[in-house]
Amino acid sequence: MSQAKKKVRVGMIGYKFMGKAHSHAYRDLPFYFDLDVEPVMQAVVGRNEEGVKAAADKMGWASYETDWRKLIERDDIDVIDIGSPNNTHAEIAIAAAEAGKHIICEKPLSLNVEEAVRMRDAANKAGIVHMICHNYRFVPAIQYAKKLISEGRLGQIYHVRTRYLQDWIMDPQFPLVWRLRKDVCGSGTHGDLMAHSIDLARFLVGEFVEVSGMMETFIKKRPLGEMSGGLNAEISDTEYGEVDVDDAVAFMARFDNGAMGVFEASRFAKGNRNGNNFEINGSKGSIRWDMQDMNNLQLYLEEDEAGSQGFRTISCTEQEHPYAGAYWPAGHIIGYEHTFINILHAFMQGIAEGRSPAPNFDDGVRNQIVLEAVEQSANSRQWVKIPIL
Amino acid sequence: MSQAKKKVRVGMIGYKFMGKAHSHAYRDLPFYFDLDVEPVMQAVVGRNEEGVKAAADKMGWASYETDWRKLIERDDIDVIDIGSPNNTHAEIAIAAAEAGKHIICEKPLSLNVEEAVRMRDAANKAGIVHMICHNYRFVPAIQYAKKLISEGRLGQIYHVRTRYLQDWIMDPQFPLVWRLRKDVCGSGTHGDLMAHSIDLARFLVGEFVEVSGMMETFIKKRPLGEMSGGLNAEISDTEYGEVDVDDAVAFMARFDNGAMGVFEASRFAKGNRNGNNFEINGSKGSIRWDMQDMNNLQLYLEEDEAGSQGFRTISCTEQEHPYAGAYWPAGHIIGYEHTFINILHAFMQGIAEGRSPAPNFDDGVRNQIVLEAVEQSANSRQWVKIPIL
Amino acid sequence: MSQAKKKVRVGMIGYKFMGKAHSHAYRDLPFYFDLDVEPVMQAVVGRNEEGVKAAADKMGWASYETDWRKLIERDDIDVIDIGSPNNTHAEIAIAAAEAGKHIICEKPLSLNVEEAVRMRDAANKAGIVHMICHNYRFVPAIQYAKKLISEGRLGQIYHVRTRYLQDWIMDPQFPLVWRLRKDVCGSGTHGDLMAHSIDLARFLVGEFVEVSGMMETFIKKRPLGEMSGGLNAEISDTEYGEVDVDDAVAFMARFDNGAMGVFEASRFAKGNRNGNNFEINGSKGSIRWDMQDMNNLQLYLEEDEAGSQGFRTISCTEQEHPYAGAYWPAGHIIGYEHTFINILHAFMQGIAEGRSPAPNFDDGVRNQIVLEAVEQSANSRQWVKIPIL
Amino acid sequence: MSQAKKKVRVGMIGYKFMGKAHSHAYRDLPFYFDLDVEPVMQAVVGRNEEGVKAAADKMGWASYETDWRKLIERDDIDVIDIGSPNNTHAEIAIAAAEAGKHIICEKPLSLNVEEAVRMRDAANKAGIVHMICHNYRFVPAIQYAKKLISEGRLGQIYHVRTRYLQDWIMDPQFPLVWRLRKDVCGSGTHGDLMAHSIDLARFLVGEFVEVSGMMETFIKKRPLGEMSGGLNAEISDTEYGEVDVDDAVAFMARFDNGAMGVFEASRFAKGNRNGNNFEINGSKGSIRWDMQDMNNLQLYLEEDEAGSQGFRTISCTEQEHPYAGAYWPAGHIIGYEHTFINILHAFMQGIAEGRSPAPNFDDGVRNQIVLEAVEQSANSRQWVKIPIL
Repeated sequence: MSQAKKKVRVGMIGYKFMGKAHSHAYRDLPFYFDLDVEPVMQAVVGRNEEGVKAAADKMGWASYETDWRKLIERDDIDVIDIGSPNNTHAEIAIAAAEAGKHIICEKPLSLNVEEAVRMRDAANKAGIVHMICHNYRFVPAIQYAKKLISEGRLGQIYHVRTRYLQDWIMDPQFPLVWRLRKDVCGSGTHGDLMAHSIDLARFLVGEFVEVSGMMETFIKKRPLGEMSGGLNAEISDTEYGEVDVDDAVAFMARFDNGAMGVFEASRFAKGNRNGNNFEINGSKGSIRWDMQDMNNLQLYLEEDEAGSQGFRTISCTEQEHPYAGAYWPAGHIIGYEHTFINILHAFMQGIAEGRSPAPNFDDGVRNQIVLEAVEQSANSRQWVKIPIL
Repeated sequence: MSQAKKKVRVGMIGYKFMGKAHSHAYRDLPFYFDLDVEPVMQAVVGRNEEGVKAAADKMGWASYETDWRKLIERDDIDVIDIGSPNNTHAEIAIAAAEAGKHIICEKPLSLNVEEAVRMRDAANKAGIVHMICHNYRFVPAIQYAKKLISEGRLGQIYHVRTRYLQDWIMDPQFPLVWRLRKDVCGSGTHGDLMAHSIDLARFLVGEFVEVSGMMETFIKKRPLGEMSGGLNAEISDTEYGEVDVDDAVAFMARFDNGAMGVFEASRFAKGNRNGNNFEINGSKGSIRWDMQDMNNLQLYLEEDEAGSQGFRTISCTEQEHPYAGAYWPAGHIIGYEHTFINILHAFMQGIAEGRSPAPNFDDGVRNQIVLEAVEQSANSRQWVKIPIL
Repeated sequence: MSQAKKKVRVGMIGYKFMGKAHSHAYRDLPFYFDLDVEPVMQAVVGRNEEGVKAAADKMGWASYETDWRKLIERDDIDVIDIGSPNNTHAEIAIAAAEAGKHIICEKPLSLNVEEAVRMRDAANKAGIVHMICHNYRFVPAIQYAKKLISEGRLGQIYHVRTRYLQDWIMDPQFPLVWRLRKDVCGSGTHGDLMAHSIDLARFLVGEFVEVSGMMETFIKKRPLGEMSGGLNAEISDTEYGEVDVDDAVAFMARFDNGAMGVFEASRFAKGNRNGNNFEINGSKGSIRWDMQDMNNLQLYLEEDEAGSQGFRTISCTEQEHPYAGAYWPAGHIIGYEHTFINILHAFMQGIAEGRSPAPNFDDGVRNQIVLEAVEQSANSRQWVKIPIL
Repeated sequence: MSQAKKKVRVGMIGYKFMGKAHSHAYRDLPFYFDLDVEPVMQAVVGRNEEGVKAAADKMGWASYETDWRKLIERDDIDVIDIGSPNNTHAEIAIAAAEAGKHIICEKPLSLNVEEAVRMRDAANKAGIVHMICHNYRFVPAIQYAKKLISEGRLGQIYHVRTRYLQDWIMDPQFPLVWRLRKDVCGSGTHGDLMAHSIDLARFLVGEFVEVSGMMETFIKKRPLGEMSGGLNAEISDTEYGEVDVDDAVAFMARFDNGAMGVFEASRFAKGNRNGNNFEINGSKGSIRWDMQDMNNLQLYLEEDEAGSQGFRTISCTEQEHPYAGAYWPAGHIIGYEHTFINILHAFMQGIAEGRSPAPNFDDGVRNQIVLEAVEQSANSRQWVKIPIL
């Protein structure tokens, strides 16, 4: 039967951390879900031929290229999946859109709002299907939280507070990798981690109205090493470069529905390996969630009987929880990689139906606007209104 | 033997929530600790004679007064314990100091910095022993955390983030009690809850350098009721008054040692009855603590062997944990009320030794300065530097 | 007003760990509760005059005796509170009953069933009010659990599983204190810890029908020291004595309502300071509780909407939770010592009303029968039916 | 490069729950790991042609058969993977061994010890590579626990206590599926869940010496339905069949190293979807683990400084944790399905090296002996010694 389905031939750019996550997801997607189209792992792109060849072989891509422009020129490619460094997103995406390819792009969408708007406009003009890869939206517990909030189960939302904490660059001898260079990334923790928290807040709470932020760089100079971005890059003993991105960022916010937000992200929170968590409080209930315990949703409902009120730990591994039913019986947990399977499921269904599911480039633009407003606020030391572009 | 000890005769003003907590602590103090002085529950003050008489009887006070001025005039009183509403603190404390009485005063110290400075100066001029009742400092887990940080076990502190969340005034029909009136309280959640978080941050992290804050009042009008402050006050169906204090407050901060702080307090966080918690991250380790699980300290130490690193849950109920040894065997937890026993222990020892243990009125002034700076910042929408007064 | 109440004059035997817990509870009882009688701390008994005198002074007893028989002879004593070692309970209790004194006795009630039955019969014959001090029944979360189960909220009970784990005697050099001697205690972990678990199961689940048990003594010889039972007893380098009680015990059980039970207690469970916890599963719901987190009850209700089912963490610190309303506002936790205040509240009300609240000596007998049956089973290596005596 | 590797052609029998888990694992195995051989998904077997054809197509098997005998006859098959009901294991495995196929077989190995011994002897005689699929051994946290215990970090083991709790058959109208029929399964909860706990205890603690058990069937008659084993089988309104397997089982045990064990498994533990957890206590430390939080290991080490002792929550997602390094960066969790990838990794490496990694059929025999001894004990109501066969 599946042979009758329309094939969607994917070309992916970048094969490191995100490339691995996306590759795996394409591979597992038809195993778990009945899609209306059939994804085909057609080609992968990397600048280093030896590396990309080995990656293609290991991860199951039918071919490889060393130049992304070649990929876009190929007419056996329907989708461009962008996982290369942030400073390449705009050029690739615009070229891909102009070539009529559907696009899924890693976050943050771009280095700045101006790029993001151009990407979105190019995508819309071309009429392609586009998404930005905010994978955490696709955790079953998050999707279920969205459902509860949409149904009004939490009532009017008063508060959202998020934390995204890591600790992998705390060693002052950790080198100046590409994720610590503004020209490559746009920002540090802000675009890498905070972008996810902003997306979850937009998904679950509403649109930002104004923000006031602060940013810190605790280690201001780091050894120069191979700029490959790997943790194992060779480190220079003698040469140091300036870290021009943030190690940590925090901001306060107001939302269009009157909610108040407190956000914090850091790579200097010792002991937090990937501590992405939040709490949302409404007039009728609250939820809490933590990525390191991603299958569970904590839910408090005021409607529970007095004396028996409390946060419930819901294992979102049941038929009622979006996406969860495709995997294992209740109580058998899934992990990080499944967030990518789920988002690619949404993307493929979007292609089948000719629409761009959220989060798409419009969400990418709005996210980038908030990111940039926080940065402006950190510089101006004042509140910044969120424009609508 | 205890009969040979110098008696310290206490007069307490206010007999509601804080009055109950202090009374209990005076009562239990000599049971658990060998003090160098002997506290005597000499007199309690309340405006309602019937109420204060019953309270004296029930809580074990030898006498009562209906006018605090009478108490200060009595020469059988050595200590004035102030638990009346915030707008009375300054007048009482200054009069008490001038009468040579030692003072322990509930937090926040005053309605504003100006009052706080006058109180501190009066206390210092009179040479009395003074403290402000930031009881959470005296949780054994917090005292132990202080010890670890002082010894450098966490290294350089990068982050502190605190939350103090409650949910008891979320019903729009909850009346306009005194805790919701600026003329009585100075502020709402800010002085009531955030003052505690500020104190813990000053205790564990360092002095504030600058802050940027926001404040919200979600329910702007409330039914007028008996202004006694009780949850059971009779509520007016027809008359509403304006809420002129904050329901929620958040702020960002920088500390003198370069640490970055994110603070939030709210009475609109459904499901959080008394959720007072924080996390501190340093270059070598981190701690986490939550008042609803107050006996436990979460400790992460980088020095632990690779592969075996993780937050430890330490039950701070052992001989090594300050104050804990006076109570029960390891693993047998204590509760909220013990924080008052411990702080009164410090206060009594201060009187015995003729010094004012921290947190004293100087801490109260500094706390009030931060509170006021946050409020200024929320109004000016800009960062505010913390002055030293 | 309280002066009009009938005084209940208490004489307490033993002033160490349990003596401290009981003394504190008598002291705090009238502070928190409005009783129908007025407890008076009349006299305390200890064999060592210097020790008992100091204890009386410190803990607030009006007088002391060095011979418990003297206490029973005194006509200014209404209640005998027995906290001396287990091998003294029967003689004291029977004498006290014959003298018409009300009795509260520490658990386990006696060294064996025969003694327990004699105690119960003497108490009943004398018509006195009697209780056994299974204090954990009086945790608000446990009382609330009892209410839920009684109302049928959990449906038919299928399972109870309990663990009571400690680790304080794991050092082989820990001396042969009285708690490790069969002639003084009757048993080791079994009577000390398991007796509590048996009581909770009887309270919450039902009566035992049959048991199959095992007992272990991991360290078979220990240094002889001062037999006072203290952790700080001087230890002999050269003399060792045999440990003739169990270090750990486990048993399986069937209940009269068809439920199945699995029980374990140990003093050799490293890292567990006072890990007293259980789970109960019924056809409609389940509960979990842990003494180290004693204020919280975990509750699962099948009636919750599909997709939103999960264990709720209920902070049993609210008006709806038995005893909790007498203490602090919701979310402000209480601790170990409050279990004794609550049970003494029940005892005093029993005296006021002329009845023996559960758990009384009848419960003590039934508990002892189960304890003894488990021990028989461990010896015979077969199941043992629970007789009704 | 991989094309140079020796191909290992797998034929799998059964395509439901376990078939899905194994299929996925074969599919993902070469993506994550560099194996010394190359697994090939050659053929899948199911009795229903339509069903097995669809499964082969969806899960990625190159061909299918409707008779397992055909599979064994095929000379393009190197490995037989047995996931069919328990009563088919012995016949299939013995035929496969005689045909010289390597075997991985789902647990429990067989209906009884006699079958298990025949399977093991046939496998050994044939010199094939064999394993039993106790996948939980291959959770990184469990592998790391094994390493800690082997290194003596916990000292002498005193206690192991396990629970494996589910709740999916509590509805009395749930039909009499094959997992509830003794002729198909051998036992109920016992072989399904308890077999896992026995394996983990054997892996981490040691060999069993004697056991004393009990078994319960709470719902004794159930509606007859399609016996396919599915949760969605059509249910008969009128016909009921007898449940002849256990709903719950518990047993106590002694181990060869003197440790004491308490085990419980149930399908009647409301609220526990897949609650597979244990605690092990040794003279120097303890561990705790729970499958629903499978990435975390709780570790207590006595060697930690006094005052700072406590259970650490270790996220076993780091390079130091076996298998974890192949997946995602630290703190990015994996799930249930990865346990199968890991065990198949071990199996493939065993084939490459010509040895049968533990757990193999010898472990299956020993597991079955313990299972059978518990069942004997439940019947005889006495302790049963564990023979060595």
